Amino acid sequence: MLSNYPNIMEQMNKVEKILQSSIRSKQPLVNQATQELLASGGKRLRPLLMLVSSMLGEYIEERILPIAAAIEILHMATLVHDDIIDDAHLRRNSETVQSKWGKDVAVFTGDFLLCKAFLLISSYNDIANIKKLAKAMRVICEGEIQQYQHRYKTNLSVIGYLKRIAAKTAILFSISGYVGAYEAKCSKRIINACANFGMNMGMAFQITDDILDFTGKRTVLGKPINSDWAQGIYTLPIIYALKDKKYGDEMRKCLEEDMDLKEKASVINELVFRSGGIAYARKMAQKYINKAYDNLNILPPGPSREVMEDMIERLINREK
Amino acid sequence: MLSNYPNIMEQMNKVEKILQSSIRSKQPLVNQATQELLASGGKRLRPLLMLVSSMLGEYIEERILPIAAAIEILHMATLVHDDIIDDAHLRRNSETVQSKWGKDVAVFTGDFLLCKAFLLISSYNDIANIKKLAKAMRVICEGEIQQYQHRYKTNLSVIGYLKRIAAKTAILFSISGYVGAYEAKCSKRIINACANFGMNMGMAFQITDDILDFTGKRTVLGKPINSDWAQGIYTLPIIYALKDKKYGDEMRKCLEEDMDLKEKASVINELVFRSGGIAYARKMAQKYINKAYDNLNILPPGPSREVMEDMIERLINREK
Repeated sequence: MLSNYPNIMEQMNKVEKILQSSIRSKQPLVNQATQELLASGGKRLRPLLMLVSSMLGEYIEERILPIAAAIEILHMATLVHDDIIDDAHLRRNSETVQSKWGKDVAVFTGDFLLCKAFLLISSYNDIANIKKLAKAMRVICEGEIQQYQHRYKTNLSVIGYLKRIAAKTAILFSISGYVGAYEAKCSKRIINACANFGMNMGMAFQITDDILDFTGKRTVLGKPINSDWAQGIYTLPIIYALKDKKYGDEMRKCLEEDMDLKEKASVINELVFRSGGIAYARKMAQKYINKAYDNLNILPPGPSREVMEDMIERLINREK
Repeated sequence: MLSNYPNIMEQMNKVEKILQSSIRSKQPLVNQATQELLASGGKRLRPLLMLVSSMLGEYIEERILPIAAAIEILHMATLVHDDIIDDAHLRRNSETVQSKWGKDVAVFTGDFLLCKAFLLISSYNDIANIKKLAKAMRVICEGEIQQYQHRYKTNLSVIGYLKRIAAKTAILFSISGYVGAYEAKCSKRIINACANFGMNMGMAFQITDDILDFTGKRTVLGKPINSDWAQGIYTLPIIYALKDKKYGDEMRKCLEEDMDLKEKASVINELVFRSGGIAYARKMAQKYINKAYDNLNILPPGPSREVMEDMIERLINREK
């Protein structure tokens, strides 16, 4: 993806090095958990977005790299805590922290990462950025709890779903674009375009993620499919199917029924397709992708915009 | 306790108000959880220590109150996450967040509190304090994981135990004294005395807490007794008993044996008393209390020192 942009790739490698060094711990178990987490990969989309947004203005490596690393660490912290809640055993084809070492270690590994992220930003002397990231994290926590509260509810609205994924996922992308362009002293117009691009990309990213929970392949995804509804988290395809005149009642009945999980999965999968829930979710994702392209039109041509376009194209063809 | 010091009491009331307003959330469940947590009380020892330390120098209310509130919020965050790990149902005679709403809500309520604490400090524009608190929190997380890793181990050393409680508990007291005096521009000698006082008081506080897990009354403590060893957390009285020539083997055997919990409790309680484990722990707590009094001798006479003396006296007579 970045092979045509050696400069950006070099900067991303530096982010990786900061990540590695800054989440080290003297406590061997914490260290093992965080280093494995790092090694298991991840697309590093948030730091990349921050970097390319920052390259639209006055790019100051020493300032932007630690914040880019910090945002990835915050993201990692939410993943570790998410997995506790989801009781997840696999992520990125690796065993999760909570599955390998128990919820105990997972709780404090997540906390450790949160603290490290704030520590990293505060080492580079910028209170405004700490505030922004702390606020974003607060919204994420509230979004997660909102999602939990809405589990097993069959009367969810599309708007409620969109708000929830904005809080849970898109905000961190939006902050990445915003901080990058803001730190580079870009114009308000450019800063807003980057922030909005992040928001729209984040929305499309999460909707696609939710579609893949029905259509994805377990081995490619690196985590089990159908893991959302089995835990009572009803995403866009199901919310749409529940509102469908023809299939709504059937979907509700099936979700509420206590039946064999495999059988249930096959009925639900059929219903989300037949009702048009998957098609609707795809259309919604496309809507956000179009908006993201609109945001890009505001940016000047060049490597940053090209990489951002590439991020979107990969999102469309996303299999994991 | 503070009735003779109306000025300090007034400042503590202001801390309480900041606490109330700053952990509010638009998300109703988060709000309910955090407000109940606040209402369930707590001794507010850390903010109090910070305030009186700060009154030894140039006390600036606007600066010190938010940090004092933030340190209490950090403490609350660790309690919420602690309870997940301990699977605790009661704290301060109230049902815990995780017991009432589940681990899911507890994980993100704790995270929410962590973010709010960092947000609160960063609103008052001091990067040095954020760093100190983030570092302290990192040590606490590592201490908690250390404790988890040492569960059910019968070969723990006293030194290991002391290090563990320093990281888990005493550091936040130490930071409270340090930041208070540092912010008030006290001399290095006074700053160190306050930091050391906090450390020594914190050590005595935790050892007393661990003694009370054997000797306390459930209704007074507001949480079940004997909750530590039942979860494999062996504290000073047990560590001492395990090293005893006469009772060590019996203690080890009893801890490892799969027997009725009530019966086990009565044997263990007898062994920690007979081996002198409780007496030893009391002596150790006294050692730290004496050290704390030595630290106080460095401070000028006056309300701050008097309140700190009072904190120690209450610690000695502590029943909960």
